[in-house]
Amino acid sequence: MNTDLQDYSHKRFNILTGEWVLVSPHRAKRPWQGQNEEVSGEDRPSHDPSCYLCAGNTRINGEQNPNYKDVFVFNNDFAALQSNSKTFSVDDGLFKAESEQGICKVICFSPDHSKSLADMAVDDINKVVETWQNEYKILGSESIINYVQIFENKGAVMGCSNPHPHGQIWSQSTLPNEVEKKDKQQEAYFNKKQSSLLGDYLKQELEATERIIYENNHFVVLTPFWAVWPFETMIVPKRAQKNILELSKNESLSFADVISKITKAYDKLFKSSFPYSSGIHQAPTNGRSNNHWHWHMSFYPPLLRSATVKKFMVGYEMFGSPQRDITAEQAVGRLKGLIE
Amino acid sequence: MNTDLQDYSHKRFNILTGEWVLVSPHRAKRPWQGQNEEVSGEDRPSHDPSCYLCAGNTRINGEQNPNYKDVFVFNNDFAALQSNSKTFSVDDGLFKAESEQGICKVICFSPDHSKSLADMAVDDINKVVETWQNEYKILGSESIINYVQIFENKGAVMGCSNPHPHGQIWSQSTLPNEVEKKDKQQEAYFNKKQSSLLGDYLKQELEATERIIYENNHFVVLTPFWAVWPFETMIVPKRAQKNILELSKNESLSFADVISKITKAYDKLFKSSFPYSSGIHQAPTNGRSNNHWHWHMSFYPPLLRSATVKKFMVGYEMFGSPQRDITAEQAVGRLKGLIE
Ligand SMILES: O=P(O)(O)O[C@H]1O[C@H](CO)[C@@H](O)[C@H](O)[C@H]1O
Ligand SMILES: O=P(O)(O)O[C@H]1O[C@H](CO)[C@@H](O)[C@H](O)[C@H]1O
Repeated sequence: MNTDLQDYSHKRFNILTGEWVLVSPHRAKRPWQGQNEEVSGEDRPSHDPSCYLCAGNTRINGEQNPNYKDVFVFNNDFAALQSNSKTFSVDDGLFKAESEQGICKVICFSPDHSKSLADMAVDDINKVVETWQNEYKILGSESIINYVQIFENKGAVMGCSNPHPHGQIWSQSTLPNEVEKKDKQQEAYFNKKQSSLLGDYLKQELEATERIIYENNHFVVLTPFWAVWPFETMIVPKRAQKNILELSKNESLSFADVISKITKAYDKLFKSSFPYSSGIHQAPTNGRSNNHWHWHMSFYPPLLRSATVKKFMVGYEMFGSPQRDITAEQAVGRLKGLIE
Repeated sequence: MNTDLQDYSHKRFNILTGEWVLVSPHRAKRPWQGQNEEVSGEDRPSHDPSCYLCAGNTRINGEQNPNYKDVFVFNNDFAALQSNSKTFSVDDGLFKAESEQGICKVICFSPDHSKSLADMAVDDINKVVETWQNEYKILGSESIINYVQIFENKGAVMGCSNPHPHGQIWSQSTLPNEVEKKDKQQEAYFNKKQSSLLGDYLKQELEATERIIYENNHFVVLTPFWAVWPFETMIVPKRAQKNILELSKNESLSFADVISKITKAYDKLFKSSFPYSSGIHQAPTNGRSNNHWHWHMSFYPPLLRSATVKKFMVGYEMFGSPQRDITAEQAVGRLKGLIE
């Protein structure tokens, strides 16, 4: 282990985006007198009559949810992207805009209002994985869709307006910024080495060991060398696969297992329902071969010191670079011991 | 005005960073059941004995603040960057890191604990501007410093841990991500056209008029075509200047005037002390000519619907692209009428 990385300010390079993160290991000692978040640990009922995601309830737009038993998918009632919206383009000197079409869906992970992925059985998480696969396939085959973003906002602090366990899919006609960056970086590497950038990185991490949190037969959970969020983690399949459709039945269960392991560890870290945004980055559905893609799932949790004190990505981070106080290796040290 | 931009989902191109923002004009109708922020409108005393930024008080590290009368600058007691930290570099396969040195300072804008820039007289804001100039000069001339980031986090929701009016400067040896992007985009344009990218953009905006909020002799306040935050604004000098040292005495006062105008308008928008992160992007102090740079100051305020409901940049925004609901033009419509 390079101890300089634990002692002195430095920046680390993100091989997937080509950008840097500033790390200030000595700064974790700073006292905190700022904003505290509310802990969302309250007990919730299994069914909440006022929840618009619970089975059988009526949504804001008047539609009634079916009495679903496991996973339930519907079109987002307030979709940011629409499939039938007008196509146009603005190319007026330094004003440049393009219309964007898309399809947005909501996925209820469970009819049980009180649960989160961390509380669900691996078999039930596997049903969510199968739904993601199905939706990636259906949406990806639509002619207007070239990219499918699967994600979850968990916790009020992450802008989630309903505690019922659910995630979202925003699929669209062009590649969003973050995907564009990862597409370019992976392609450049693949063209040069004929090998997966993330696959080669994974080999190096498995040798270094210090950022590995957990592994099973098919997956590794680690904190990437260039992690931005205090307790950021990434799930990487050991086989280079471009998207989640390449998972065998066994691998899909293994994927559900690692999701279960890391979300449970997160809840234990500060003894609270741990907020995060998670997302799967995988190959665009743009008809290209995309052999350079190695899909992965990331968790970006905001909490830093406790269940109530988060890391603020504000002034310097917005105008300069993302910045973190505890190092990736320190975060791994704490998370690793919490895996069941 | 192109009405398609007010009606249909689209993405807009940021000429300064080369990235896109997703705009969903129809989505502002979405109801909000999520987290509410606290309004920080409470009356504060002019001097708070427990505040470590007030004149004469003792800071956490035991140092005593002088009885300052206007602006007071000191080295950050918990600096993210240090000037004497070890220099090293990691170049180990796909692990890449570089040490980073720097100097971090805190600037108290006024001894009056109860004030913010919005409450200060233009002459007093001008003293802050002169301090920024002075610090840019001093820090920029240090051999280890190649870039000086001036910024302010205002409000608890922006991670500000002390309501005493203050901003920060983080200066460092390399260019942070956002500055690197703007450096490249401006340089490419300047090399091609021998003219300032932002200057040419400003001309186009002044003709279009629909995104202009206010102008005086030397400055324009506008919401950029590609704005990300709901009520984002940018202050642009009419003359192409690479840094704030090029301001004449008159221009410096004009700059203080536009800061006063926009911060007062912000406070009126939701009748509260309006939170934001602001920052000045200007030429690096790396010894290059940097004639392609046109400095500007931006405000990134998080509030969307009211003093308590902010825009969350979470799942889709973290994994995809920034996304906004109200259009830049709608935001301008609301801010413009609030300028005194
Ligand atoms: O320096 P402060 O005010 O203690 O801290 C605040 O601003 C910094 C610079 O944007 C951020 O890194 C911190 O997360 C934020 O809480
Ligand atoms: O779609 P929701 O849950 O209403 O909204 C949440 O997630 C979206 C996608 O990340 C964000 O744009 C919103 O700011 C956030 O509140």
